[in-house]
Amino acid sequence: MNFETIRWENGKVIIIDQTKLPEKFIERTCQTVEELHDAIKVLAVRGAPLLGVTAAFGLYLGIQNCNQKKGEAFIGEIERVAAYIKTSRPTAVNLFWALERMVACARSNVQKTVPEIKEILFHEAELIKREDSELCRSIGKHGEPLIEEGDVVLTHCNAGALATAGIGTALAPLYIAHEKGKRFKVYADETRPLLQGSRLTAWELNRSGIDVTVICDNMAASLMRKGIIKKVIVGADRIAANGDAANKIGTYSVAVLAKYHTISFYIAAPYSTVDASCPSGEQIPIEERNGEELKKIGERKIAPDDITVYNPAFDVTPQTLITAFVTERGVLYPPFDQALKK
Amino acid sequence: MNFETIRWENGKVIIIDQTKLPEKFIERTCQTVEELHDAIKVLAVRGAPLLGVTAAFGLYLGIQNCNQKKGEAFIGEIERVAAYIKTSRPTAVNLFWALERMVACARSNVQKTVPEIKEILFHEAELIKREDSELCRSIGKHGEPLIEEGDVVLTHCNAGALATAGIGTALAPLYIAHEKGKRFKVYADETRPLLQGSRLTAWELNRSGIDVTVICDNMAASLMRKGIIKKVIVGADRIAANGDAANKIGTYSVAVLAKYHTISFYIAAPYSTVDASCPSGEQIPIEERNGEELKKIGERKIAPDDITVYNPAFDVTPQTLITAFVTERGVLYPPFDQALKK
Repeated sequence: MNFETIRWENGKVIIIDQTKLPEKFIERTCQTVEELHDAIKVLAVRGAPLLGVTAAFGLYLGIQNCNQKKGEAFIGEIERVAAYIKTSRPTAVNLFWALERMVACARSNVQKTVPEIKEILFHEAELIKREDSELCRSIGKHGEPLIEEGDVVLTHCNAGALATAGIGTALAPLYIAHEKGKRFKVYADETRPLLQGSRLTAWELNRSGIDVTVICDNMAASLMRKGIIKKVIVGADRIAANGDAANKIGTYSVAVLAKYHTISFYIAAPYSTVDASCPSGEQIPIEERNGEELKKIGERKIAPDDITVYNPAFDVTPQTLITAFVTERGVLYPPFDQALKK
Repeated sequence: MNFETIRWENGKVIIIDQTKLPEKFIERTCQTVEELHDAIKVLAVRGAPLLGVTAAFGLYLGIQNCNQKKGEAFIGEIERVAAYIKTSRPTAVNLFWALERMVACARSNVQKTVPEIKEILFHEAELIKREDSELCRSIGKHGEPLIEEGDVVLTHCNAGALATAGIGTALAPLYIAHEKGKRFKVYADETRPLLQGSRLTAWELNRSGIDVTVICDNMAASLMRKGIIKKVIVGADRIAANGDAANKIGTYSVAVLAKYHTISFYIAAPYSTVDASCPSGEQIPIEERNGEELKKIGERKIAPDDITVYNPAFDVTPQTLITAFVTERGVLYPPFDQALKK
């Protein structure tokens, strides 16, 4: 991997403007918390783990020049900035989590001087970034042995470096295998309707020198039939206690096709994705998104105006179709209810 | 169905400009054979059966005002016009077939007067159109009993009225069931990369008052898992002697998913699609199309410029995944090698 999704430089946050990908690689500099708020809002920066890191640096950006002299008043200012950043993506769990961690960190140091608290907060943001990066590498190291010399791997959507401050989750084993000099080929489902595969996964693997080919989602089956695809690795948004996993719409389709063609199907995700309070996939609610996503690409209409569309954002892959989970704690094999509990 | 894909009116050929669908329903009038040639070339008119009918009327359009007085010289002119129309879509088999039938018809009437030959040719074009329309209805009538009250049917691509001079092939059973007052629901795969499902199938079913919902190709599996989809009907481009069938890319994927979820999978196609000289799907060559189709929609880039893409136009569904073939000769069940021979 040869790009950095987020970095702190001379008092500013620099991100990749992901709305410009894959056409252009443009970095966007956020000098103020308002600029960073806007970058999150317009999806210039996206991906759950990366949003957490961005919010943490955003908080520091918002208070670095604060003139408050007293700890309590300074904490109040920190809370105001955190509340403001939260309004940029009100459903982003990682963003909330990171901001709460930053605020709690400040509060537990309230007896220190304001310059000291500022420095502590900067290091906390750096720590959140480093932890995310290390988490990715750890998933990658555990998954790397699954990638063989000459392998051909299919992935769906983008659980890649662009969604994290590191080498991604589902794509992490591929980056580590590439670093080790293994040669392999990746097929990336374009992933309708939002095309994260062709726009993001293709871009980041290609830029990193990994051999990647984009296909339409409906082409994977015939590649499997020809024996070309050897294994599948995808990410997950939520894993139930029994191992059923919710991920981008189309993942279940890939899992069934893999099962039918006797191809291994791996989910690579941080352990935090496991929701122990959710017994099975039945309890995972599936967000239905705006139908316009199927009717237009850019300004181009691709379906009749008055047509009915169905646009679920996720589907659930039952645990019986999953070969193993690749996490930062290792590769977990069935029975998953026991493996995921540990 | 409440539109006509092609008609002859006051010495002109009138077609629906399918490049304007689904945004606008615009009829395009061809006054000269050059205008008709252009309409075929820019894909304003498409679909194998419809191209045959269009070419037949195009030939008549090209010779209706010819001043030749002698039969032989007139036949020469007819052949020149036919050769010219052939250059509009040099790989369209039905177009060649219809033109050859028109030329042969003229030649077998060479002893008649030029006005008589002209009249015979006009009636031959009308006959080609009527035969196509009747073929569609016949497929529809045989397939209609498969559609039950309250049914939910998935289709892929567009083997519909817009591809024929009648009510389509794969969609014909649906139109007949609708005429009979049966209520049912259709899910249309959008069918990447060229989106014939969302652009054409959705448009024509919606316009005809049939309840249709567009989905991305990767969403069908989760609808099947939920038990919503009860059967699948698709068309075919070529059927081998053993029953293996080539159709639009993604059809094989749907067939595997249907099998996994124990859902009937029907292919509705004219008997002429059966290629007795082709023993199995192994011998069917698969056209690979320009990769730009995956990288752009309209002028909008959706993948990196320098990315590798794989873009097969068709896939082959093995006969073991096919429940039955719906043809104008009836519904054919396994063993297909015997059923297709009759």
